[in-house]
Amino acid sequence: MKALTFNNKLELKQDYPMPDLKENEALIKVTMMGICNTDFEITKGYMGYNGILGHEFVGEVVEIKGKDKSLLGKRVVGEINLGCDDCDWCKAKLSRHCPNRSTLGIWKKDGCFAEFLSMPLENLIEVPENVTTEEAVFVEPLAAACEILEQKHIRPDEKVIVLGDGKLGLLIALTLNAMGCNVLLVGKHQNKLDIASAQGVETALLNEIEIAPKYDVVVEATGSVSGFETSVALTKPRGTLVLKSTIATGKELNLAPIVINEITVLGSRCGQFRPALRLLKQKKLDVKPLISKVFDFDDAIEAFEANKQKDTIKILMKVN
Amino acid sequence: MKALTFNNKLELKQDYPMPDLKENEALIKVTMMGICNTDFEITKGYMGYNGILGHEFVGEVVEIKGKDKSLLGKRVVGEINLGCDDCDWCKAKLSRHCPNRSTLGIWKKDGCFAEFLSMPLENLIEVPENVTTEEAVFVEPLAAACEILEQKHIRPDEKVIVLGDGKLGLLIALTLNAMGCNVLLVGKHQNKLDIASAQGVETALLNEIEIAPKYDVVVEATGSVSGFETSVALTKPRGTLVLKSTIATGKELNLAPIVINEITVLGSRCGQFRPALRLLKQKKLDVKPLISKVFDFDDAIEAFEANKQKDTIKILMKVN
Repeated sequence: MKALTFNNKLELKQDYPMPDLKENEALIKVTMMGICNTDFEITKGYMGYNGILGHEFVGEVVEIKGKDKSLLGKRVVGEINLGCDDCDWCKAKLSRHCPNRSTLGIWKKDGCFAEFLSMPLENLIEVPENVTTEEAVFVEPLAAACEILEQKHIRPDEKVIVLGDGKLGLLIALTLNAMGCNVLLVGKHQNKLDIASAQGVETALLNEIEIAPKYDVVVEATGSVSGFETSVALTKPRGTLVLKSTIATGKELNLAPIVINEITVLGSRCGQFRPALRLLKQKKLDVKPLISKVFDFDDAIEAFEANKQKDTIKILMKVN
Repeated sequence: MKALTFNNKLELKQDYPMPDLKENEALIKVTMMGICNTDFEITKGYMGYNGILGHEFVGEVVEIKGKDKSLLGKRVVGEINLGCDDCDWCKAKLSRHCPNRSTLGIWKKDGCFAEFLSMPLENLIEVPENVTTEEAVFVEPLAAACEILEQKHIRPDEKVIVLGDGKLGLLIALTLNAMGCNVLLVGKHQNKLDIASAQGVETALLNEIEIAPKYDVVVEATGSVSGFETSVALTKPRGTLVLKSTIATGKELNLAPIVINEITVLGSRCGQFRPALRLLKQKKLDVKPLISKVFDFDDAIEAFEANKQKDTIKILMKVN
């Protein structure tokens, strides 16, 4: 099968071996994939991962090894963390923190940038009929946005600011707005901010706002050290800074303001798919304006290059 | 009056002007003072402070400007943050986060390392009769330890580890133990750990413990970057890292584990005095073994030098 692999370099293999199915796993024929910045980070060495890239997909179940065949032929998405099913985390439905987990296309599990992939049946969820495949492929990053509200209660009267108008920042602002929060999205690109404001989110350019500790909740979605420092400066004493992007500082970082202002820094990563799918099903937000271009999977290398462009928001790939 | 000042250098002035009293302020004759590491940090440039140092004291009220004379002649301690009394923070009894606050001996307010100081009456609390002056002088750092439980609910079944066996780490471990938490104190100095274990706290040397994400709550009280990194490594996924000491990293710091493991980093600073005084009054812990030496205030410079010694825990100064 065709597969986009990373082994020190990115390569579209034409004859990668088909995945083996274990008990209670499904074989999925991939129809649509989304490129995430994490995929790009991996090609720069993040997690030391080698193998098939990709963790955002929609596909059709074409084979099942196991008794329960109910998903056969269905259009599905799949939760990306595969737990051991045996530890306290897995028992608490938090397999995304299982110490023995593998993670699709990120850690010890071949990803979805291929014609086929295998997944445990329990990770798969059928896509509701009224959600298009282009929309459904957003479910993983949308679930990461929903995760904030799984971790933290945000009161309707609290002021929330989201920093960063990339795909993650946009999805977070749209999601929190859809959930009834009082959100301001701030970024550097008017064309990206316009996507959120068209759906009712208040927006501002970074140079238009006062950098003062006025916000109860600050969501850092820029992935930069300067974004982190600005986020600290925007957080009210005793407020919460939600850290959504993995930052490795290459320079000195002063943590003193976090202590002095008693700020809570909340690390936040993957979320559950069902709340995200529900947002799409109920049309609470529209992800389609985030799509910059849909490439054929045969042009995967080109799609990866397009993802690096500054004006790009979301790049999808489809398998014909 | 005599006063220990910092203006680029530390100096014991013999003829510093007496403080002026404003309406509803008290003049306090200082009897006992405690040296905190923050005092030492200020002499290295922290906060850019110039003036009389010191924020830990016990004294006697010798004069009051105002109608309420009830504290005249009483032995008192004093909350160190002076709010504007007018903002939302002050109205919520959180003057320690008032944006216009001054802080005793740290920010815009002469400190307590002097024969006399002035304080607003509302900041003063009478010391209970059964609490000695040597004990009462610990109330400020003890309040900082109690602050953790004001900010966060720690369940009795959760595993808490305190990193650092300096005075702050010891007080935090003794306090959380007194409050019923399941605490392990870890440090590098057996003689310091022994002080905590003599009061029923479980202790271990740093090289004796496994560095693994096993703790629900990790309290970082070393003040070092390596201590912070060890704290991150000890925190369970979705656990809490309480940051008690102001750290400015001089090297690269990787925040990715905080996101991946969804760790909550909780900045924690000053606390309220009353819960701390209650601990002392009820004899729930004994701070006296932390006293390394009591200097005469005339030997303040020498006391400061002694505070830098590695084996020192708490240095007090008394005025005769």
